[in-house]
Amino acid sequence: MTKIAPSILSANFATLKEDIQSVEAGSDYIHVDVMDGHFVPNITIGPMIVEAIRPVTDRPLDVHLMIENPEQYIDAFAEAGADIISVHQEACPHLHRVIQQIQAHGVKPGVVINPATPVSAVEPILQDVDLVLVMTVNPGFGGQSFITSTLGKIEELAQLKADYGFDFEIEVDGGVKAETAPDCVKAGADVLVAGSAIFKQSDRQAAIESIRSSIEIS
Amino acid sequence: MTKIAPSILSANFATLKEDIQSVEAGSDYIHVDVMDGHFVPNITIGPMIVEAIRPVTDRPLDVHLMIENPEQYIDAFAEAGADIISVHQEACPHLHRVIQQIQAHGVKPGVVINPATPVSAVEPILQDVDLVLVMTVNPGFGGQSFITSTLGKIEELAQLKADYGFDFEIEVDGGVKAETAPDCVKAGADVLVAGSAIFKQSDRQAAIESIRSSIEIS
Amino acid sequence: MTKIAPSILSANFATLKEDIQSVEAGSDYIHVDVMDGHFVPNITIGPMIVEAIRPVTDRPLDVHLMIENPEQYIDAFAEAGADIISVHQEACPHLHRVIQQIQAHGVKPGVVINPATPVSAVEPILQDVDLVLVMTVNPGFGGQSFITSTLGKIEELAQLKADYGFDFEIEVDGGVKAETAPDCVKAGADVLVAGSAIFKQSDRQAAIESIRSSIEIS
Amino acid sequence: MTKIAPSILSANFATLKEDIQSVEAGSDYIHVDVMDGHFVPNITIGPMIVEAIRPVTDRPLDVHLMIENPEQYIDAFAEAGADIISVHQEACPHLHRVIQQIQAHGVKPGVVINPATPVSAVEPILQDVDLVLVMTVNPGFGGQSFITSTLGKIEELAQLKADYGFDFEIEVDGGVKAETAPDCVKAGADVLVAGSAIFKQSDRQAAIESIRSSIEIS
Amino acid sequence: MTKIAPSILSANFATLKEDIQSVEAGSDYIHVDVMDGHFVPNITIGPMIVEAIRPVTDRPLDVHLMIENPEQYIDAFAEAGADIISVHQEACPHLHRVIQQIQAHGVKPGVVINPATPVSAVEPILQDVDLVLVMTVNPGFGGQSFITSTLGKIEELAQLKADYGFDFEIEVDGGVKAETAPDCVKAGADVLVAGSAIFKQSDRQAAIESIRSSIEIS
Amino acid sequence: MTKIAPSILSANFATLKEDIQSVEAGSDYIHVDVMDGHFVPNITIGPMIVEAIRPVTDRPLDVHLMIENPEQYIDAFAEAGADIISVHQEACPHLHRVIQQIQAHGVKPGVVINPATPVSAVEPILQDVDLVLVMTVNPGFGGQSFITSTLGKIEELAQLKADYGFDFEIEVDGGVKAETAPDCVKAGADVLVAGSAIFKQSDRQAAIESIRSSIEIS
Repeated sequence: MTKIAPSILSANFATLKEDIQSVEAGSDYIHVDVMDGHFVPNITIGPMIVEAIRPVTDRPLDVHLMIENPEQYIDAFAEAGADIISVHQEACPHLHRVIQQIQAHGVKPGVVINPATPVSAVEPILQDVDLVLVMTVNPGFGGQSFITSTLGKIEELAQLKADYGFDFEIEVDGGVKAETAPDCVKAGADVLVAGSAIFKQSDRQAAIESIRSSIEIS
Repeated sequence: MTKIAPSILSANFATLKEDIQSVEAGSDYIHVDVMDGHFVPNITIGPMIVEAIRPVTDRPLDVHLMIENPEQYIDAFAEAGADIISVHQEACPHLHRVIQQIQAHGVKPGVVINPATPVSAVEPILQDVDLVLVMTVNPGFGGQSFITSTLGKIEELAQLKADYGFDFEIEVDGGVKAETAPDCVKAGADVLVAGSAIFKQSDRQAAIESIRSSIEIS
Repeated sequence: MTKIAPSILSANFATLKEDIQSVEAGSDYIHVDVMDGHFVPNITIGPMIVEAIRPVTDRPLDVHLMIENPEQYIDAFAEAGADIISVHQEACPHLHRVIQQIQAHGVKPGVVINPATPVSAVEPILQDVDLVLVMTVNPGFGGQSFITSTLGKIEELAQLKADYGFDFEIEVDGGVKAETAPDCVKAGADVLVAGSAIFKQSDRQAAIESIRSSIEIS
Repeated sequence: MTKIAPSILSANFATLKEDIQSVEAGSDYIHVDVMDGHFVPNITIGPMIVEAIRPVTDRPLDVHLMIENPEQYIDAFAEAGADIISVHQEACPHLHRVIQQIQAHGVKPGVVINPATPVSAVEPILQDVDLVLVMTVNPGFGGQSFITSTLGKIEELAQLKADYGFDFEIEVDGGVKAETAPDCVKAGADVLVAGSAIFKQSDRQAAIESIRSSIEIS
Repeated sequence: MTKIAPSILSANFATLKEDIQSVEAGSDYIHVDVMDGHFVPNITIGPMIVEAIRPVTDRPLDVHLMIENPEQYIDAFAEAGADIISVHQEACPHLHRVIQQIQAHGVKPGVVINPATPVSAVEPILQDVDLVLVMTVNPGFGGQSFITSTLGKIEELAQLKADYGFDFEIEVDGGVKAETAPDCVKAGADVLVAGSAIFKQSDRQAAIESIRSSIEIS
Repeated sequence: MTKIAPSILSANFATLKEDIQSVEAGSDYIHVDVMDGHFVPNITIGPMIVEAIRPVTDRPLDVHLMIENPEQYIDAFAEAGADIISVHQEACPHLHRVIQQIQAHGVKPGVVINPATPVSAVEPILQDVDLVLVMTVNPGFGGQSFITSTLGKIEELAQLKADYGFDFEIEVDGGVKAETAPDCVKAGADVLVAGSAIFKQSDRQAAIESIRSSIEIS
């Protein structure tokens, strides 16, 4: 059963509680986009916001760190209430150490790869993570178009799961909507992050339902 | 007339609209603390949050950038609706250029100095700014104690204003409450930023009133 | 038909117009080596020089960026008149985004790999680029010796082109002259960059001809 | 006698030899602007260009390094033929060491201060330098307007020279032309850098003469 | 014959001469852990310490650089008396150049990969190195537990040696003791680094012997 | 009574225990030079070495951090047994915070200024520190010549102590020996760091005595 994770990057930050609760019903995770203005050219939100939204929903908080030196903030995000913390391969010369650090908090670790990063770059860590997030746009901003060529990497990861019995979820993030979701799921995606396709729609529950239908039909 | 600027660093980030409106009545500015996890060891909020709170209040948004390379984000904060943008002297080898960049957007520029930074470090820029923010705690977190030794720098700035006819406002930020506000104002402060002394109190308007009374009595 | 790209790194920078025109006849591209003193231990030239040489030749300007954070300078080089802009895989955690940025200017994008960087590191981007530049010396200075072990990577790229129908050109840069050119072409190189083997010779057209002959004979 | 130093930042980089020789007659120094794209947002030229122009003029080459970590390039610029090498105070936590390193090559050292940098920041080094360059625009690009408020710093430096018997030259760079030159000289400037006011004029010798006349008349 | 390399990271730094001599008898290399507090979160020792211990033993000094920009310190460590110098793939965008620099001193070069770094990342350099160091803990501190999943990379390297006739030694570092050594050797390790398993034992020669026995028995 | 602090930068790092004990008799502090290869171009020693030498002497360990981001290592050095920890003004945009952090460990904080750094840069912190270290050479290596022009800054600090009743000690470091010590003491120095003038002499106690005599006579 494919999971849906609305990304609060497209929510209204003045009314986060309401906005998160408006999407909770149809959602499996709440996806939180953390940007530091250094790893990506945008600054979004930090641990205090995670702490603030922790009590407003009981969905798992799926925190995606688009930051340099994530090891300096793992503790803060874990203490703020993150359930999953994912870090970028491109930001972690000591990737295994960061994954260990996340696990030490009892939080599920994930690893993220940018559109041009090959799956081979994360192979040695696949047995240690609970999530592999394949970026299907370049991280930094909402509302971009899905990069079709990333589908091959989703398939490659699905094959590795099958071959080695790994149990990580494959998550995709960027440009996901009813038109692109079926291809992601066919390629092997387990979790679909969607931002503007949910939060920017007048009826958010219908929007979630529309993505879900597109997958089931296909 | 001393101005009061509640700092949203101590607000509830899940309900920013409500929280900001709860302090609006007694406030002159809304103070926005932007941290990037590099200049200071905390990540808070970025341009999208400024954009989200812009429509919920008509108070000027007084944006304090605790970030490295602020020149990369001036445009985004200006477009998001900032009325004042202040940058740290310690983060700006090209301070004059950043001030020019802020002014080019029709936004009022400010310069900030950390507790150990001398007033002499910003003297050549005093004629160009609308605000000098004297940090009275070390930036990064709310709830710290006022550093008394910074009062001398407030006096020094007030003297420079008097001597040269500069018309910047002197703002203080950190540990400001009814007990410390009078000394700040006596030293020359024009704007008092207060975070936990306002947002963490059960009656926020009373809390603002209490700070205001402390100043008038003194 | 193998292309020849004289590298102005070995030209006389006081008389660039003359020097470029002296090699134009036998050349396909003019190769421009941009170094920032950070990615490589040398500073060479920037956008203003590209702009200055743009009118002196009608050969495509093939600009090789040996700089950190190339995304900050793509716009300037595109506006200065570059026809091809290549960036290093080792300098780009967000490689796909930079390639998109180059394409958005109507400029052809290339990716460069250092001698120790495997072809696997750029596989996900191969379908998006017009050029793959295989460094056959370590970038930074002219006049170095060809590193023979890089030939295997040229062959690997040629095989990927054949297998997947990619249409990028394979360019080689470093230590190319009549003695090393044939091996490069046999391995699959489409474009040969040559610096001192052309500009440091008394008869530059003869030098180009000599490289060209070496390839045809072989 | 005030010196004039045409800045090649405004010359045509395709024909540097000619351009430099076109301004040589009326000039005292040739000013060379080195930018690395990190200290300032532009990349210009490096040691190889200095080496190339060294033989085309016998005027002293006055090299202004707008680069981070200048200590890594002092040797290269000295060997390339620089007569004066100036480094920014803002780029040098170990300023005295860099000045020593320049002197060790028999080259004259200078220190540069940005528009917002106070004279007090360089006081301990004044006895060791041959040149103090006061930026009268923000470094990075040619063609900007003179920042009048920097005149006070020129006066302050002139006073320190008088008081302590220092023998450095005071150089100004940015927005210098016939309209602004007199104020600089009155304030105490010994060397005037001019770029577009010379190189962008149809008759460059007349342009130099015009600046020179403006000073003498005033 | 498997080599044993005691790591002085677990020695007493007040009595290095004695400590090194206490392990010399049973050792093949003395392993020296250099950390700069930037590449890893610990600062240990630098070239002066290598120079100081050079005369106290005639075993080869096997220097493992856990530092950023290792190219800036290769010369100092070579001159201090290092016999082998290994650098991290993750710290070297110009890995081939650093290996060349080490060889130019007549010192044997090695390359190191962190637990999450795949073997594919160093394939192009394997023919140029004398040592490949597979980290079996995350570098930074002594006394950590062996990460079993790294054994696959040792096997992969051993296979590449067999397939291509490479002659580098495979070294493992982290958590090596009598319990873990046999698996390392079976996977293909040629050199075992051991720190606390030797230096923290009351009879260090017995400790070395115990590791050696564990390998021979297995 | 002037204090003498032998710097172990000139000791034999293979026999630190013996070397430190050889200078203990005539010494007041043991001066420990920590370099990270980033703030200064040398790597020396870190917390583990401080921990190792802590038990071999009962003299206060006076730890001079020549490192970037010292806040990341204050805890480690405090726990290793440092009695005084000094940080460079040039390395600390948040100088007051670092001083607070040192004090929180019950360790005495000091601030260091490089030869070209003016006293004005540290004025706001003078009331908070126990030590001001005036570098009389550029930090990085032992055996350099005393920079006479720094004497003025020692006098300036002594005057500030007198005027404001500050109680920090003034320490000087670099090129101190019997010839230069008297001038330092006359200018106001309270603590003299000496490295090669003590450790590189055949009779170290006599060397200390010689420095001490020079001061008393003068």
